[in-house]
Amino acid sequence: MPARRIEDGHHPFGPAVARLISEFANLPGIGRKTAERLAHHILTCREEEAMALAEAIREVKATIHQCKICFNLTDQEECEICRDPRRDRSVVCVVETPKDVSVLEQASAFGGTYHVLGGRISPLDGIGPEKLTIDALVRRVKRDKVKEIIMATNPTLEGDGTALFISNVLANYEVNITRLARGIATGSVLEFANKEMLADALRGRQQF
Amino acid sequence: MPARRIEDGHHPFGPAVARLISEFANLPGIGRKTAERLAHHILTCREEEAMALAEAIREVKATIHQCKICFNLTDQEECEICRDPRRDRSVVCVVETPKDVSVLEQASAFGGTYHVLGGRISPLDGIGPEKLTIDALVRRVKRDKVKEIIMATNPTLEGDGTALFISNVLANYEVNITRLARGIATGSVLEFANKEMLADALRGRQQF
Repeated sequence: MPARRIEDGHHPFGPAVARLISEFANLPGIGRKTAERLAHHILTCREEEAMALAEAIREVKATIHQCKICFNLTDQEECEICRDPRRDRSVVCVVETPKDVSVLEQASAFGGTYHVLGGRISPLDGIGPEKLTIDALVRRVKRDKVKEIIMATNPTLEGDGTALFISNVLANYEVNITRLARGIATGSVLEFANKEMLADALRGRQQF
Repeated sequence: MPARRIEDGHHPFGPAVARLISEFANLPGIGRKTAERLAHHILTCREEEAMALAEAIREVKATIHQCKICFNLTDQEECEICRDPRRDRSVVCVVETPKDVSVLEQASAFGGTYHVLGGRISPLDGIGPEKLTIDALVRRVKRDKVKEIIMATNPTLEGDGTALFISNVLANYEVNITRLARGIATGSVLEFANKEMLADALRGRQQF
């Protein structure tokens, strides 16, 4: 019976616990059983420990925003990569999300800069090209004399479609457009690729 | 290189993100990779969603405390089970943690009340009987004319030892002491037992 009750928002310890379990269960990859275990940890851990997590969440939302150049996330005006004078601004790797930047950075195989689209073109979800940062990318190509654009969208139908759309938009500019080598199986997600696969894919990038 | 940097508290998006990843990774059963994914979710989700989680954590720590009768957790003076007039106060099931109460309640096989010890006797960890709520249990036995104590400590060396200690303490009182039937494999943890096993173990409880 309590199993049913938890589902309709009731918990024997009170509504605050039911709410916490729901909030944890809303996180990606966290099921109800794990959410309950996390809530029980919060219930029994030291006050400071729980508050540190709550405060870290609040602080991230208060201080982190988009880099004004590449739309990666940062706590400053420009992200760490755009600020780094050693990074080559004439080579721009185009990705869907900030997470993809982190994943590619962990491969330590790229010395250029990034451009975060903020998603991929997906007519079924109502996401057209105007919702992505494609205009800003075109401005960067003009302004920063970008020599090469590396397409690193996910190797899915929509990711490939987005890359194709951008390559068409940039067709009139003097910029070399490449894409990640297909070391990555089509239909998978960039986030789960390992360092070696990503490093290989960067090295073996092909003419678009 | 970023992999190393994340470990010493640095993150390309800034220290707030590094802190959030550490806080998530401190939760039980959450590894660094999952912690990074959760942090990225917080980074990209709506402000209200993130704040709801932070607030749920804060609220749980602010409102939940121990039941003054059984030491289960509650947002009131007495827990939901102790408040329920249909529960039999003369039968008390003794468990180590509030989580164990939830787990047993999900089996819906018990109509008595609980007593949460707050752990188990563990000399190696410096936890002696005086750190548990054994004195309060003895007072309940006297005051509430408890007829039966069901030992539901974990079926481990320390859990069994704790049950044995309590049964010795209560030897001079007119109370029947039983324990959960060993449907549960010795050495495992109560939290992971399924409903059926728990219901069987309650039904088949044995003389201690």
